[in-house]
Amino acid sequence: MIKTIEYQGGLARMIDQTRLPREKVFVDCRTIEEVGRAIQDLVIRGAPAIGVAAAIGVSLGANAIEANTFEAFYARLEHQCDALAKARPTAANLAWGIERMKRTARKHRHLPVAEIKERLRQEALAVVEEDIQINRKIGGHGQALLKEESVVLTHCNAGALATAGYGTALGVVRAAVEAGKRVNVLANETRPFFQGSRLTVWELMEDGIPVKLITDGMSGYFMMKQQVDAVVVGADRIAANGDVANKIGTYMVAALAHRHGIPFYVAAPVSTLDLTIASGEAIPIEEREGEEVVNVAGQSIAPEGTVAAYPAFDITPHALVTAIITENGIARPPFDESLKRLTETG
Amino acid sequence: MIKTIEYQGGLARMIDQTRLPREKVFVDCRTIEEVGRAIQDLVIRGAPAIGVAAAIGVSLGANAIEANTFEAFYARLEHQCDALAKARPTAANLAWGIERMKRTARKHRHLPVAEIKERLRQEALAVVEEDIQINRKIGGHGQALLKEESVVLTHCNAGALATAGYGTALGVVRAAVEAGKRVNVLANETRPFFQGSRLTVWELMEDGIPVKLITDGMSGYFMMKQQVDAVVVGADRIAANGDVANKIGTYMVAALAHRHGIPFYVAAPVSTLDLTIASGEAIPIEEREGEEVVNVAGQSIAPEGTVAAYPAFDITPHALVTAIITENGIARPPFDESLKRLTETG
Repeated sequence: MIKTIEYQGGLARMIDQTRLPREKVFVDCRTIEEVGRAIQDLVIRGAPAIGVAAAIGVSLGANAIEANTFEAFYARLEHQCDALAKARPTAANLAWGIERMKRTARKHRHLPVAEIKERLRQEALAVVEEDIQINRKIGGHGQALLKEESVVLTHCNAGALATAGYGTALGVVRAAVEAGKRVNVLANETRPFFQGSRLTVWELMEDGIPVKLITDGMSGYFMMKQQVDAVVVGADRIAANGDVANKIGTYMVAALAHRHGIPFYVAAPVSTLDLTIASGEAIPIEEREGEEVVNVAGQSIAPEGTVAAYPAFDITPHALVTAIITENGIARPPFDESLKRLTETG
Repeated sequence: MIKTIEYQGGLARMIDQTRLPREKVFVDCRTIEEVGRAIQDLVIRGAPAIGVAAAIGVSLGANAIEANTFEAFYARLEHQCDALAKARPTAANLAWGIERMKRTARKHRHLPVAEIKERLRQEALAVVEEDIQINRKIGGHGQALLKEESVVLTHCNAGALATAGYGTALGVVRAAVEAGKRVNVLANETRPFFQGSRLTVWELMEDGIPVKLITDGMSGYFMMKQQVDAVVVGADRIAANGDVANKIGTYMVAALAHRHGIPFYVAAPVSTLDLTIASGEAIPIEEREGEEVVNVAGQSIAPEGTVAAYPAFDITPHALVTAIITENGIARPPFDESLKRLTETG
């Protein structure tokens, strides 16, 4: 099983996703700042994995704080957390991971600082472990939605590499395969970072699950040819009304699936829900450097001086979403009711 | 002005579009077979440019035939033409260019073979010249559809580089700019061959027309943000009912434009119409090698052994097309009537 991120002794060990599939190398982060940089530079990406990295990062940050009182300790911890929270603005799980760790610190405020650090370490380890369990539950719920023989189209990578392991959207695929279903995956390459070709294809091939690579603009073609049975994607943040922020390009896939009557499923842990936000309009969309669009595999594919835009995410309106698959069950429209219920069952 | 292809003495000189924008080098084709290979290898691409290349190619082929009678000459010419016609299956203009040259030969069947060759040379030169004039007419008709201040989204390259010069979709943009309108272009990069980033951005920057590069999956995002006033694309073949074959990914853009109430215009010469075909379903879609999806700028962006699909075109159903702009005027729905009328005015 692919271990995207582990908390080993005093460090966070991550597969360097900028270098896959060419080479499988690991990056060790020893400080919260290094974790923040790894998130920013896409060494680790995928909303759930970012949440896990955040939890480990906060534990590493806590360990480095020298303080005698809880107040002094917590003030410095909050300061570190504020910086980490800025690494990437869109994924809800970053704030979720940080908040969970801060809550743990506050819960144990009566303990000596050394003991609080130990509780934070245990909490981070629990977050890693839980994430895999959550994905298995998502997979269990989601696989029931797929037919015995299914072609599943996915965008970006919401797989083992986007989580501590197993994956959300690809967790649904894995669980279906484990249940004996014959699933073929159509993987959108997902420009500009090629998460589809570099990561989704890689991890499915590792698991022996049949996958065909296509460019993002081909998904409409295969839907028109009636060669797609379902779309399953992950999410970076889900608003209270069911609007979904996910990798740029997702909206086009959702709109085309809707046009063709193909179910569009979003697989994500409850930690991706942000019920404090009424609709997708309020979700901050990260703008990355246009250079990342222009430079492909270390080479420029456009003339010198090209101006390029790179909004990293888009919003899929809830009207295009067939169902949202979480570890607590499946939410269907109207999402403002069903999502609320799912968080309460948690 | 960019000269995509010229007929000079005994050769067809083309800008090598596989090497733009890195370097501006020319390829000289001295035989019809070399022209066929250049079309197949995408040294020259774009439906109108392929039509022009075909005409020059047939002239080069004719020159190489040694025959004393028209019958012997024409039999060998037809044989060469059949091979050339197979270079790329989707563009209607390839067959159109070949057919026009064969018709010219037949028309002059009473002349000595040397004289027929000369008439074919003149016809090929006329095709080059006419193509530029046709594009200026398309531009003139099309620019009237754009507002004084417009953001035009385009997919692939239907510019000077897709024609003998000036362009179809980009001809509309150029004519609008010449008419004093302020036009900004959003250029889809157009995977997998990057015609948008490599060619459209390059030729618009050469002309000083503002252009911003985006990935194909971003077009929906900018439409949702209400930052697109019109979509203008070219076409490779247009069926009698107005269904449009164009670069893979066009259909998704058209579907999204329709969803957002943004006009979707197709700019193409009458030679792109194929009224012998009732609907898009009957248009042959070229399947290219998956390797071309996997290899980017000479490097593989996916694991070894990746299976990739590469349908090079898709069909945009006529219901998504606002208007088709030709040199003979603008066709609007119902296209089966309006397109027929336009060919009769020709």
